[in-house]
Amino acid sequence: MAQAQKITPRAKDYSEWYNDVIMQAELADYSPVRGCMVIRPHGYRIWELMQRALDDMFRATGHQNAYFPLFIPMSFLAKEAEHVEGFAKEVALVTHTRLKATGKAGAQAVAVDPESALEEPLVVRPTSETIIYAMFAKWIQSYRDLPLLMNQWCNIVRWELRTRLFLRTTEFLWQEGHTAHATEAEAEAEARQMLAVYRQFQEEWMAMPVITGRKTDSEKFAGALRTYALEALMQDRKALQAGTSHNLGQNFARAFNVQYQTAAGGLEYVWNTSWGVTTRMIGGLVMTHSDDNGLVAPPKLAPIQVVIVPIWKSEEEKGQVLGVGGKVKDELAKAGIRVELDSRDSLKPGAKYFEWEAKGVPVRLEIGPRDVAAGQVMTARRGGGKAPAKLDSLTASIPGVLNEIQAALLQAAKDRTEAHSIRGATKAQFLEFMKGGGGFAYGGFCGSASCEAEIKQETAATVRVLPDPEFRSPEAPRTCMWCNKPSIAEAVWAQAY
Amino acid sequence: MAQAQKITPRAKDYSEWYNDVIMQAELADYSPVRGCMVIRPHGYRIWELMQRALDDMFRATGHQNAYFPLFIPMSFLAKEAEHVEGFAKEVALVTHTRLKATGKAGAQAVAVDPESALEEPLVVRPTSETIIYAMFAKWIQSYRDLPLLMNQWCNIVRWELRTRLFLRTTEFLWQEGHTAHATEAEAEAEARQMLAVYRQFQEEWMAMPVITGRKTDSEKFAGALRTYALEALMQDRKALQAGTSHNLGQNFARAFNVQYQTAAGGLEYVWNTSWGVTTRMIGGLVMTHSDDNGLVAPPKLAPIQVVIVPIWKSEEEKGQVLGVGGKVKDELAKAGIRVELDSRDSLKPGAKYFEWEAKGVPVRLEIGPRDVAAGQVMTARRGGGKAPAKLDSLTASIPGVLNEIQAALLQAAKDRTEAHSIRGATKAQFLEFMKGGGGFAYGGFCGSASCEAEIKQETAATVRVLPDPEFRSPEAPRTCMWCNKPSIAEAVWAQAY
Repeated sequence: MAQAQKITPRAKDYSEWYNDVIMQAELADYSPVRGCMVIRPHGYRIWELMQRALDDMFRATGHQNAYFPLFIPMSFLAKEAEHVEGFAKEVALVTHTRLKATGKAGAQAVAVDPESALEEPLVVRPTSETIIYAMFAKWIQSYRDLPLLMNQWCNIVRWELRTRLFLRTTEFLWQEGHTAHATEAEAEAEARQMLAVYRQFQEEWMAMPVITGRKTDSEKFAGALRTYALEALMQDRKALQAGTSHNLGQNFARAFNVQYQTAAGGLEYVWNTSWGVTTRMIGGLVMTHSDDNGLVAPPKLAPIQVVIVPIWKSEEEKGQVLGVGGKVKDELAKAGIRVELDSRDSLKPGAKYFEWEAKGVPVRLEIGPRDVAAGQVMTARRGGGKAPAKLDSLTASIPGVLNEIQAALLQAAKDRTEAHSIRGATKAQFLEFMKGGGGFAYGGFCGSASCEAEIKQETAATVRVLPDPEFRSPEAPRTCMWCNKPSIAEAVWAQAY
Repeated sequence: MAQAQKITPRAKDYSEWYNDVIMQAELADYSPVRGCMVIRPHGYRIWELMQRALDDMFRATGHQNAYFPLFIPMSFLAKEAEHVEGFAKEVALVTHTRLKATGKAGAQAVAVDPESALEEPLVVRPTSETIIYAMFAKWIQSYRDLPLLMNQWCNIVRWELRTRLFLRTTEFLWQEGHTAHATEAEAEAEARQMLAVYRQFQEEWMAMPVITGRKTDSEKFAGALRTYALEALMQDRKALQAGTSHNLGQNFARAFNVQYQTAAGGLEYVWNTSWGVTTRMIGGLVMTHSDDNGLVAPPKLAPIQVVIVPIWKSEEEKGQVLGVGGKVKDELAKAGIRVELDSRDSLKPGAKYFEWEAKGVPVRLEIGPRDVAAGQVMTARRGGGKAPAKLDSLTASIPGVLNEIQAALLQAAKDRTEAHSIRGATKAQFLEFMKGGGGFAYGGFCGSASCEAEIKQETAATVRVLPDPEFRSPEAPRTCMWCNKPSIAEAVWAQAY
């Protein structure tokens, strides 16, 4: 693999720093396909750990996984008017099904066979409401079939013009939950419940604090009644939308004729919800915790939680430290800890430290001959701090160390978010805040799309959410921060990814 | 959900039976997209259990998961001549990226925007050798980077004209392993190792006996040096190719310039392997074990291993049996058994039995008031056989019952396969065997493509594999079963899916 290189410091170029961290940690790589990336094993493992944790939470709340087709007939997308308008400009379209030989050599050897044109083009799913609710119409007959609670893990394609590793790619991986309910209240409760599940995951597992709330109409999902979202503040003070949960109302049920017989014998349309989080979360994890030395991974999602680096000078010492290192590895692995022993001959310990730091391993155990003699190892935390630890109590002490690191990362991210938030700002204060680097600005909002448009024009900030009660300021704002008309809700403004 | 319906008996129409079993067990459903199916929760759970087991085996043999783009530039496919020829007639091609409004209403509201044509069309991956080895060329520099052992779980599209649920669908799910090695011997060992992993999985988990061996040139993978395969005999005596493992030689390494510096400082092309199994295995599982009452799932892959059906007449009895049933469920679940309690009011016990049998649940526990009084339950096995069991020792006894069922299913499938195999047949015997229903016919083979073509023409049978030593007949055949020229290898002939 490529040799470790210097990571651009955040202060110099945040965007370069972000790419460098990802490339050095071998989380992902650019692919030869426009806008598509390769998720490398170290990055994909983070995704698998995210999947495992979320999937358990989805199951615990009664959802079942299924798999629906990648392709959606063009006419399906058109059935819900807002929906097709929202996605029309970013869909990959399959129009033909055969290649034919051109008689030329090499890369020009084939061309699209015009005789293989499809009667109806197929859309590569940009989201699956249309195809899933077409199936729901087949499966749902009576109130006994409700609620229907499904989830799908899959790939998604949206033809993005400007892409960034993990944050915005033409193809990405996600899960999309899709449910059908008998009443509006149940659908609303479901959309709310899954927002809470996401929040719990992002705070407990990613150590990434979020604000939750409702999107304004200009930012809601194409076809939804109401969109709820989670927003996290990155180190460059830009907001990242980390997940969404939609109450779709009866919009799709009407478009796809998803009706059920009530207990009383009547016929009603179901109420749908959909909700999703994506591989974008890996970008959020990177930008929440990492530093100029590379990735910082919260222990719960770190592909490797502990790396053991043995230190030796002679062959005799090598045998000794590798023997102890191997034993420590086996014991920690048996205790459920993701651990590696770096026994490579080709690198010195310092180069190994450098590499594992860039890869975000939370704890490094250094074992030299003197440590072996003293029955101890040196414990180095990714965030700083070294301390000796008794060899014979590592399986007892390491889980505590990992928990401490996890908690400290969440606290640091909370503190940083708070430090870059202002509340009850006037227009002048808001403009100064945004010029000075920005962050989360809480202020009154009149609800008008024209204020939203003006603010976006002047500051590039948008309403991230109308925050949920637990995030609102102690005193409700009375007037719109921008136009001074009466406020209909507090809003959180920020520049966003 | 739809009410249970009668399953067509195998003897009447095998193909209808197969579809009925899948629909009644709610494993999958037809979708509105040509050739694509929906994998429903009960079927998808089988896939998840398969994934979990295989993934553990891949990791134990040193492989790491990654994710590569869905789209492959058309020119990439063309770089390996045999490869593009093999796939040219069955690829979905993305040619445009936007829809535009037509001014019409409803399904005709949009059309492909001709101005959004891509400069180079993209192929929806029919397999990922080309895009993966393009990345390998970037990642591999020296012998220290070898072997590179990767795996990807993803969706695949091949434009099939005749499709069947799970067995052949336009889109399917699979895993594809891709590795690079320094020497031909290492690549050969890897291809062989993964074939053995698949065999172990299919026999131990699916309870599906397989023959392994090498494919003839006419059946090998487009671009491979050698293809190895696993073949299982279904109840209708047709063979199912259940997985393949390819030694790709240096074909793709040359096409994508994947070279490494040797320890001595020279430059060499790597040797690649690729290997895969797909959701087709679910079709194989269905056809190996199921009967006229529906799905029979081997316990290790059964989404639900035990279902508890409480039986009551009065409300008082209901409280009693549900109480005990709930306790049994919790205890079995705690012991790691996948268990459900069917407490539905709307169905009688008999209807529940019928439904769970169709869904392939290996063990049913019936709990009535008398059983509660006697401290026991009635244990009914999916394959037949009822016996009382002590309530207080269920967590101890059930795992044994599940193991017995798993072993019995494998043995029955082995016996059936053996009963439908002939060895050392003459041409006349072979023709009679194929006319009489077929199966695995072991016979001498001269190696000529013309014999293969003639046999296929007359009997629809193909060489499934040139079997590995452990499957070969005690006495090696001396002459070709068909043309009587000297035999170069024993072959296994069968009609196949």
